[in-house]
Amino acid sequence: MGIVIQLDKEQLENEKQAATALQTLLDLVKDDMDRVNQTILQKMQSPVVLIPQLAGHLIASGGKRIRPMMTLASAHLCGYQGDHHITLATTVEFIHSATLLHDDVVDESSLRRGASTANSIWGNQSSVLVGDFLFSKSFELMTETDSLEVMKILSHASSVIAEGEVLQLITANDTETTEDAYMTIIASKTAALFAAACEIGAVISDRPAREQEALQSYGKNLGIVFQLIDDVLDFSAEEEKLGKNIGDDFRDGKITLPVILAFRRGTGDERKFWRRTMENLDQKEGDLDHALKLIKKHNSLKDTTERARHYGAIAHDALAIFPNNAYRKALENIVDFCIKRAY
Amino acid sequence: MGIVIQLDKEQLENEKQAATALQTLLDLVKDDMDRVNQTILQKMQSPVVLIPQLAGHLIASGGKRIRPMMTLASAHLCGYQGDHHITLATTVEFIHSATLLHDDVVDESSLRRGASTANSIWGNQSSVLVGDFLFSKSFELMTETDSLEVMKILSHASSVIAEGEVLQLITANDTETTEDAYMTIIASKTAALFAAACEIGAVISDRPAREQEALQSYGKNLGIVFQLIDDVLDFSAEEEKLGKNIGDDFRDGKITLPVILAFRRGTGDERKFWRRTMENLDQKEGDLDHALKLIKKHNSLKDTTERARHYGAIAHDALAIFPNNAYRKALENIVDFCIKRAY
Repeated sequence: MGIVIQLDKEQLENEKQAATALQTLLDLVKDDMDRVNQTILQKMQSPVVLIPQLAGHLIASGGKRIRPMMTLASAHLCGYQGDHHITLATTVEFIHSATLLHDDVVDESSLRRGASTANSIWGNQSSVLVGDFLFSKSFELMTETDSLEVMKILSHASSVIAEGEVLQLITANDTETTEDAYMTIIASKTAALFAAACEIGAVISDRPAREQEALQSYGKNLGIVFQLIDDVLDFSAEEEKLGKNIGDDFRDGKITLPVILAFRRGTGDERKFWRRTMENLDQKEGDLDHALKLIKKHNSLKDTTERARHYGAIAHDALAIFPNNAYRKALENIVDFCIKRAY
Repeated sequence: MGIVIQLDKEQLENEKQAATALQTLLDLVKDDMDRVNQTILQKMQSPVVLIPQLAGHLIASGGKRIRPMMTLASAHLCGYQGDHHITLATTVEFIHSATLLHDDVVDESSLRRGASTANSIWGNQSSVLVGDFLFSKSFELMTETDSLEVMKILSHASSVIAEGEVLQLITANDTETTEDAYMTIIASKTAALFAAACEIGAVISDRPAREQEALQSYGKNLGIVFQLIDDVLDFSAEEEKLGKNIGDDFRDGKITLPVILAFRRGTGDERKFWRRTMENLDQKEGDLDHALKLIKKHNSLKDTTERARHYGAIAHDALAIFPNNAYRKALENIVDFCIKRAY
């Protein structure tokens, strides 16, 4: 019992630190984020009312808006003066929202951010098409900045995201997936957008290549941290904080690092269990609990978090070439938030 | 019997004229199209093998490639010298292919161009994600031309297409749809890409605004013709020529102009029939035959084709400001092809 209480204490302390880390950034970019939120609302309008309805359901449902904040903070870190960072932060959130709509269709999800998914309310057809709208709109939006380089970065990131999503789909249910293969997937499906979101902050500020590369590296590694912890939270979070069900990845047969580690470290019987439940999707009551037990037995969540710390350290160091100001500090703290967050 | 034979003769003559009209253009842009086909194959490559597999199944399955030909011919009409027209024709075909992949998911189609649809082979999930890949890739491709105006035109067209698709989805099954509402849908979902495909030919050639507008108008009206005849063919084509099943729109409850006309001109009983079959999708054997009878009774196909001729005339006249050369002639003939085609 003593251990349980201690873990709870540590976790609470972590969550407190995470909340503080996020708040620092939120405070810094508050005015910008208000403008981004207005731009989001304005740019998702359409005479076809289902579009703002469905898109609004997803976008207004909140979410951390961490990706657009990355663009805003990166631009400020580079001393940007102008308005394009607002447009681009909106663009980044639109790309993200489009992928969420399509992800929920692909995963047949029914819950996101504590609310019913758009596909479960309006059907898969609407989610596919409104996703396409947001995606197109994001490209239309980015042309407003008149920056060819920004467009090249963001359109390339979008292709890489789609490649990562397809790769994830075809490796689903494959318990033999290696850690390397998994890292390739999350580098594409998640880290590519974080990397682009940060890099474009330097591009619109006309900063030298080394700063652009530094922010690209920061974003990429932060994105990896973010996804690793996402995969941990899918097995460990408190559902009401996470806003979705625990064990979604398990039920979908989605092979993430916690499972990869537990499978590789497992006994023959344990591997049989993983094959039955995640490859054949032959799941019965109690299986998720058993999976959680095995994941705990092999320290899979703790070690996935350790891996996240490694990438977090790289992200942190990537910022070292920038002046030590409030924005750099806030971006550094976000690494901590991504590791310690509970949602 | 005499009438039937005469109609057949007329139809055969039409098809012959259509084939000749298409061939003129095909001959003119043959070398370019070879390069476009190579670029398509090259740009759909990915280390994720499912992507070229699935995309290749759709793209290599043929199709008329009419949209990329529009870009090539428009560029030549404007005296374009360079290579960007090849890139942009590929871009246009990628946007079109992405929408086809998503359309087949939305419509739950199983047959396209005489072959099984990608979604029926690889599943909806893969089709959604590979569609996203082609869509992203199309944007990545267009940035290669370094033309901001091209990007604005194509990204705006993409948003409009998505709006049109959503609009079509929510008016499906609504027999009260007006001809105007239907025209708004097809102007968005089909004509917008034809318009953009033609307009960008003038843009990369640095031609004055009036030529850009003329090609935009030509493309828009040609696109409307193309869609109207598509909707006619869904009730009248020979299946082996069309490469898909007759009556797909009827079975999906997709309200197109032939149905709109038959419904408006119909008796009370006939309207009841349309409501039962297309609104409630309560269909039984013999219903398609009955629908075809009503459509014939009210001259719906003939009159839809008449409407198409009206837009075709506008498209034709839009080209009048250009020199009377082989490309203009070929583009004019394509209007004829779109009206008289059998597939």
